[in-house]
Amino acid sequence: MSNNRIKLGMVGGGRDAFIGAVHRIASRIDDQFELVAGCFSSTAEKSKASGADLGLPEDRVYSDFTEMAKREGRLKNGIDAVAIVTPNHVHYPAAREFLKRGIHVICDKPLTSTLADAKKLVKAAEASNAAFVLTHNYTGYPLIRQAREMVASGELGNIRVVQVEYPQDWLSEPLESTGQKQAGWRTDPAKSGAGGSIGDIGTHAYNLARFVTGLTLDSLCADMQRFVEGRELDDNAHVLLRFEGGARGMLWSSQVAPGNENGLRIRVFGTKGGIEWLQEDPNKLWFTPLGEPKRLLTRNGAGIGEASMAVSRIPAGHPEGYLEGFATIYNEAAQTIRAMQNGEPDPGLPYPTVHDGLEGVAFVDACVRSSSRDGAWVRLAI
Amino acid sequence: MSNNRIKLGMVGGGRDAFIGAVHRIASRIDDQFELVAGCFSSTAEKSKASGADLGLPEDRVYSDFTEMAKREGRLKNGIDAVAIVTPNHVHYPAAREFLKRGIHVICDKPLTSTLADAKKLVKAAEASNAAFVLTHNYTGYPLIRQAREMVASGELGNIRVVQVEYPQDWLSEPLESTGQKQAGWRTDPAKSGAGGSIGDIGTHAYNLARFVTGLTLDSLCADMQRFVEGRELDDNAHVLLRFEGGARGMLWSSQVAPGNENGLRIRVFGTKGGIEWLQEDPNKLWFTPLGEPKRLLTRNGAGIGEASMAVSRIPAGHPEGYLEGFATIYNEAAQTIRAMQNGEPDPGLPYPTVHDGLEGVAFVDACVRSSSRDGAWVRLAI
Amino acid sequence: MSNNRIKLGMVGGGRDAFIGAVHRIASRIDDQFELVAGCFSSTAEKSKASGADLGLPEDRVYSDFTEMAKREGRLKNGIDAVAIVTPNHVHYPAAREFLKRGIHVICDKPLTSTLADAKKLVKAAEASNAAFVLTHNYTGYPLIRQAREMVASGELGNIRVVQVEYPQDWLSEPLESTGQKQAGWRTDPAKSGAGGSIGDIGTHAYNLARFVTGLTLDSLCADMQRFVEGRELDDNAHVLLRFEGGARGMLWSSQVAPGNENGLRIRVFGTKGGIEWLQEDPNKLWFTPLGEPKRLLTRNGAGIGEASMAVSRIPAGHPEGYLEGFATIYNEAAQTIRAMQNGEPDPGLPYPTVHDGLEGVAFVDACVRSSSRDGAWVRLAI
Amino acid sequence: MSNNRIKLGMVGGGRDAFIGAVHRIASRIDDQFELVAGCFSSTAEKSKASGADLGLPEDRVYSDFTEMAKREGRLKNGIDAVAIVTPNHVHYPAAREFLKRGIHVICDKPLTSTLADAKKLVKAAEASNAAFVLTHNYTGYPLIRQAREMVASGELGNIRVVQVEYPQDWLSEPLESTGQKQAGWRTDPAKSGAGGSIGDIGTHAYNLARFVTGLTLDSLCADMQRFVEGRELDDNAHVLLRFEGGARGMLWSSQVAPGNENGLRIRVFGTKGGIEWLQEDPNKLWFTPLGEPKRLLTRNGAGIGEASMAVSRIPAGHPEGYLEGFATIYNEAAQTIRAMQNGEPDPGLPYPTVHDGLEGVAFVDACVRSSSRDGAWVRLAI
Repeated sequence: MSNNRIKLGMVGGGRDAFIGAVHRIASRIDDQFELVAGCFSSTAEKSKASGADLGLPEDRVYSDFTEMAKREGRLKNGIDAVAIVTPNHVHYPAAREFLKRGIHVICDKPLTSTLADAKKLVKAAEASNAAFVLTHNYTGYPLIRQAREMVASGELGNIRVVQVEYPQDWLSEPLESTGQKQAGWRTDPAKSGAGGSIGDIGTHAYNLARFVTGLTLDSLCADMQRFVEGRELDDNAHVLLRFEGGARGMLWSSQVAPGNENGLRIRVFGTKGGIEWLQEDPNKLWFTPLGEPKRLLTRNGAGIGEASMAVSRIPAGHPEGYLEGFATIYNEAAQTIRAMQNGEPDPGLPYPTVHDGLEGVAFVDACVRSSSRDGAWVRLAI
Repeated sequence: MSNNRIKLGMVGGGRDAFIGAVHRIASRIDDQFELVAGCFSSTAEKSKASGADLGLPEDRVYSDFTEMAKREGRLKNGIDAVAIVTPNHVHYPAAREFLKRGIHVICDKPLTSTLADAKKLVKAAEASNAAFVLTHNYTGYPLIRQAREMVASGELGNIRVVQVEYPQDWLSEPLESTGQKQAGWRTDPAKSGAGGSIGDIGTHAYNLARFVTGLTLDSLCADMQRFVEGRELDDNAHVLLRFEGGARGMLWSSQVAPGNENGLRIRVFGTKGGIEWLQEDPNKLWFTPLGEPKRLLTRNGAGIGEASMAVSRIPAGHPEGYLEGFATIYNEAAQTIRAMQNGEPDPGLPYPTVHDGLEGVAFVDACVRSSSRDGAWVRLAI
Repeated sequence: MSNNRIKLGMVGGGRDAFIGAVHRIASRIDDQFELVAGCFSSTAEKSKASGADLGLPEDRVYSDFTEMAKREGRLKNGIDAVAIVTPNHVHYPAAREFLKRGIHVICDKPLTSTLADAKKLVKAAEASNAAFVLTHNYTGYPLIRQAREMVASGELGNIRVVQVEYPQDWLSEPLESTGQKQAGWRTDPAKSGAGGSIGDIGTHAYNLARFVTGLTLDSLCADMQRFVEGRELDDNAHVLLRFEGGARGMLWSSQVAPGNENGLRIRVFGTKGGIEWLQEDPNKLWFTPLGEPKRLLTRNGAGIGEASMAVSRIPAGHPEGYLEGFATIYNEAAQTIRAMQNGEPDPGLPYPTVHDGLEGVAFVDACVRSSSRDGAWVRLAI
Repeated sequence: MSNNRIKLGMVGGGRDAFIGAVHRIASRIDDQFELVAGCFSSTAEKSKASGADLGLPEDRVYSDFTEMAKREGRLKNGIDAVAIVTPNHVHYPAAREFLKRGIHVICDKPLTSTLADAKKLVKAAEASNAAFVLTHNYTGYPLIRQAREMVASGELGNIRVVQVEYPQDWLSEPLESTGQKQAGWRTDPAKSGAGGSIGDIGTHAYNLARFVTGLTLDSLCADMQRFVEGRELDDNAHVLLRFEGGARGMLWSSQVAPGNENGLRIRVFGTKGGIEWLQEDPNKLWFTPLGEPKRLLTRNGAGIGEASMAVSRIPAGHPEGYLEGFATIYNEAAQTIRAMQNGEPDPGLPYPTVHDGLEGVAFVDACVRSSSRDGAWVRLAI
């Protein structure tokens, strides 16, 4: 594959960043991408240093994403795709520049910091002939694919109840006031948007519920809190969900729940069975057919379906983790991009799209509206 | 102790019943009670047969609880206490008869089937010189006592978030239409009251949250469903909680969640730490002091406090279960009754009282009001 | 049942004891026994004080078990059965006195402190018309009955491998030198016999393997250690097992393994499936049919068999614990005694007998012989 | 890094293989290697096809590893290092050819199929100026590094007991007779050597025990079985271990234990504490300081040490898995190779070496000798 890797650029992901390195590892695991350019920071010096760390030639390192989009778009061997891994408020302006030049975009979540930007980005993506892939990475876990497949095939019957949560504890104290960069922008409305925990991790939970069940949200009621004094965005959110067709759900996101690292968990209950999955133990899926003993499905283990097998790299019993799930999104991006490059039809892979991203931002917007109206029931404004 | 056992009667708990046998075992474990009389059914024949099964003399077996209360109240060796283990709607009329004759009452939950009855029962209990003990039995688990002690002593700091749930799956299908007795009365508003799952198990979850945290509920928002066609009472309930002082919570009760037997779970998060406990694995309590590794506290194990030790019977590593927790409520009833018999001050033990029972019924009432007003926020009507 | 309880005496189990209280609770849970007499200590004063604690009349409290056996044997309402809960070396002399007078014996494990005593006790039991029940209590757990039933019915196919272990940590330091009574006699060869951990808990593990699988031991190889300086008996034992028919096993007992309370665990693997059970989480049994997903069987839950149901008291999802398992042995003793009292045939219940006890003592003897011969392979000397 | 990757070749790992793909992913994760050549099969056609799959130029694809070593050794941009991922019996002859040309070797385990080969390979490695890295990959898990660090720093005190096991179930039936390639060579003495399960996975367990504890084996007693009819090598092995200094252990390897995928588990107990780790849940390490509650250490979580941090890529709560642990061995190989290339001193990283490999093969040899002498105690023949 080495001669034929997709040429990847990156916006964001410089020296202090966290998620940029994750994207880079994910892009390498299945050997489909080669990082060849980047705008790692808007400070020229920082961007240059980061590019050097990564072994990039100086002339492929930028400090302005518009300039990068322009130049790479014109280069003979310019990038095919760009990964946008900045704080939320930069997603839209950066993505727009690449999309308009036909450069495929792989963008971190949530899609944007405002609902207005999200809608504009949808239009930009629709107007472009490039792919748009949103890294709601948890959808890449094999057993999440298995869960989705089981719901779709009717093994759970009609879905009645969805319980989803994403608790963390790292913001239990005012970490942002210490200068910690990750905490800083995530608690800053100018960079994150109107959602704190609900935007950063609640959108993951919401997306996962949608991804697994295929249900459409009808309305919600949210009660959000800012427990840490002086914090401007929610650090805990309680949300009731009503789906079309009658299913109901609860969603909890928190960054102030001591004892939780990345406790994303989803449980889905239907007329014929129930399932449970935990992100921190992702190679196990609990399935109970109503009236039978609980079964432990393992990644690629006995009785597993095709959807999980399709995105697994190694046999059962050896855990695949977060990076592999993330890599699956990259791999599906690669398959889609190659099909487009070859003029083949879209393979229709299940990675999250710009439309999922819009829905996520609309979900945050609805939570904020509901909570600010004292927990009234509201609908998504899409 | 055999010569000095408290003489116990029972109302309900005949041949088809479930919880009556549990009360009888619980009453024996610590050797404080001897069952000597009973009104096991309002059908004379069934009551007689049940009494015979239990080895009771015929003249101590009744089919009318009022007659039982009258006669036992006059007998020289009449009962000291009565366990009321009937469907909910009988709790109040039965308890009233015994209380007015100074016979101590140990009553199953929820307190009554209506809020009006609950308020009358509080008055009856207050007017009586007898004790009233409500068997919210989960409060008897040693590690629930430990959790309560930890919250009270400040080990968790100020409480911010409470997550409590009680999912089951046994009513996923219309079991009540098969003639199954337990399902029958629990789904019948005339016997259960206005709450289905919320009354039967939601009150346990609510009581446990109150017991562990000591927080007082300010208001709630409930979204309740009847998923099984033809069912008259909720079989699933989603509730948001606002406590006085700013703590928030979520409560879920369900009887249609496949894969759950008695999945009562409570998680409490404060400024300084978090805890988690599961009823189905009750000899373990997870405790995470903020910024430190999670610790596994075991019943009577290393580092355990006095409240747990006080209600444990055996050393760590050998599980105590549901019956032992239930027995602790009986044991505390016995200690209270003996103190009263001896003219000693109330030892002030933590068992749930008639006031907790009133609050539970008010909680159900509030959930029903909220849900019927499309999930509006409401307060308890106490 | 109250009028018809089996009259029970007790030898041992005075104020400082641990297991005596367990036996008393176990005897009450199913309401089949009433404690009416006891020889709680060989010190008259201590025995008297313990009897008074238990509400026994003074004339039924003894300080000499032979005198107790003689007098109770002659009393019109003398005891029907006796529970022997002393240190090991007293089991034989005490049991002999009651057996010869036709008083049923419920005896703690291991059977005796020496192999010679064990053989004599077998003869005494065989010569008596009384029942002999050995409280290898773990055999009373419902899911152990389930496991046994599954093996017997062939659900696992031919058994190949048995892994059994019982680690504890309470003797990691020389607790016996502090005067702690439980540690004192258990580390004293004169009271315990030749086995330390292997006698105290290794026999439980061995008995459980035998009980579940029905396999007969052919030979063993043991490597035993005394890790704590000055200790006279093993505190850790590693044993390889060869069963008749070709199955093989490993057995580990330890009292110096920090992090283990009562970590009794058994795993059995056959040609068609495997099972796993942990004493500290006894309401769960893992079962994997070869080539299928692992299943979680719960006590009385979906798909459970008759053997578990027969010894369960409450529905699935509410844990039964150590005391209930112990009570099942008492309950089976009661059923056996009542059958004998009524001249009915022995119901053939699965409780451990004097023969299981002999085998356990022979197992300890073989381990000691093997280990003292530097881990040579040896056979049981029965 | 892309301009400066270490040029990697591969021997083995063609189309039907399993572990070759793992090595390739592992080599990419940290972006230190670029696969540029390979001898993927001794059949020219198969090797060519595999090379094409991987995008390699035809002139870098070989069907004879000696020819590959010769030519690559002479090429200006020939490989720096080679990964040997063949069945065991090819490890020595292949490694020898590369080592003698100064090409660094990354070799799968066990080191060789015979003890004689292992000793020759040690000499070849010592005589070479190239590095030799053995992929006992489980040593690359961050929490195994943590465990090793804790033992080394004395947090567990003096080690007394080591319990290690590696059960699988995939060879419960005669899979080798179906033509399945992985089963075929693993059960063939000519390719695997004298050990079946003990060589394939027992060596991993043994290596892990040595890696974590640093203890040296004094002697062992092994009882090995071939449960599946017609199988020539052990599919289950029970081993007792005596370490120098008095610590003792048990080791179990099995490929016929239904319900186990890759159940590698290690438990270590010392005078001051105990630890437990499971490969299938590798982001958790249980640690119990004697007399304190059990603690759950998580990869990079609260209270974690430097050794784990050094080999982790992402923050706590997002699982790293098997491929990342494997990649750590590659990363340490890269660091070592770069130091050698730069004339810097060996950084002394903890990856397993040719000496660990020799010891593993000697362990297999000792198990086979012991078992063939009916479970006699034997020493390693190094």
